[in-house]
Amino acid sequence: MIKTGIFIFPNVETLDFCGPLEVFSAANIALNQNFFDVYVFACSMDAVKTINGLSVNPVYDINSVPQPDILVWPGGDGTKEVIEQQSVLQKLEALYHGSQHAFSVCSGARIPAVLGLLDGQTFTTHHSVFDDVQRLAPRARVRPNNRFTDNGKLLTSAGVSAGIDVSLYLLEKLKGVEVARKTARYMEYPLTRKKRL
Amino acid sequence: MIKTGIFIFPNVETLDFCGPLEVFSAANIALNQNFFDVYVFACSMDAVKTINGLSVNPVYDINSVPQPDILVWPGGDGTKEVIEQQSVLQKLEALYHGSQHAFSVCSGARIPAVLGLLDGQTFTTHHSVFDDVQRLAPRARVRPNNRFTDNGKLLTSAGVSAGIDVSLYLLEKLKGVEVARKTARYMEYPLTRKKRL
Repeated sequence: MIKTGIFIFPNVETLDFCGPLEVFSAANIALNQNFFDVYVFACSMDAVKTINGLSVNPVYDINSVPQPDILVWPGGDGTKEVIEQQSVLQKLEALYHGSQHAFSVCSGARIPAVLGLLDGQTFTTHHSVFDDVQRLAPRARVRPNNRFTDNGKLLTSAGVSAGIDVSLYLLEKLKGVEVARKTARYMEYPLTRKKRL
Repeated sequence: MIKTGIFIFPNVETLDFCGPLEVFSAANIALNQNFFDVYVFACSMDAVKTINGLSVNPVYDINSVPQPDILVWPGGDGTKEVIEQQSVLQKLEALYHGSQHAFSVCSGARIPAVLGLLDGQTFTTHHSVFDDVQRLAPRARVRPNNRFTDNGKLLTSAGVSAGIDVSLYLLEKLKGVEVARKTARYMEYPLTRKKRL
């Protein structure tokens, strides 16, 4: 089982994290196999309210979360507060170093940016925050026309719905095109969308 | 404010309801106007666990939920249990009659099917349950090639991600193409996808 840990926080954008959660769990459902253990975690066990008003209960807090193999940083306006919290950033950095893959969705790119993880790497993000992420990571190489970027271990994706695309892409990379195709078919979503809309 | 009430239940498919929730709340965010009051409701106030393992807290229970102007029936394996619960169905039927618009996502079509609301109407649903929904509503007219169908008050959509498309379509119908376009752009999602993938 590939542990897939999704970090959530107040004012996270709902689809930013529900897209990846859907893809990796749908792979289990569509193929009737337990490929992925998918869970959300937060700073504490308190319910997290998304920017869209949805109240979500974390499965773990950041101190007890099992080390994810895949670490997901969704976006949303709340990322502005996340990157001001040094103790949270330190824990996210440690989780990154213990993971096999990590990706940001939308303005979630602020997190690897402030951690210095985007230095020398390519990134994309929500169209409204290219400048902001570039300011946080001046040595990162922006790819404004990409739906997502792949730096090997670290990936980034464009805004909101693009978290679905980078997840399907990573799924294909890890489990092969047939698993990705069946998952996309289950979700009735196109498998290959690599260019920014 | 247009009240948008999304019914959730155990083993609801996450993206089925988070897609519409994202669209109608993103319209508020993208245009910085309070067009929509979006809320999830359930049979009780207990946390609802989706088929993807996400734990969500309802804003209202079905007895106290404010009458929605837009009523949303998402799908997921849990719809099989929902359509066995007569008291729940009666309440959903009353909410339908009080609404201006209602739509199903994916296997959520089972709900209007058993309520007789699809009789003489067109419908689409997840590709795996066409026969099942048709069996529940023998007088409904299936549209297997549609991403969604529009019967005026009652709409239906195809599987999982198609809830995003029918929501953007209804948003355009209610608030005009510019609002829908800006919302889709915020979500970095294509505005017009009308054919099944």
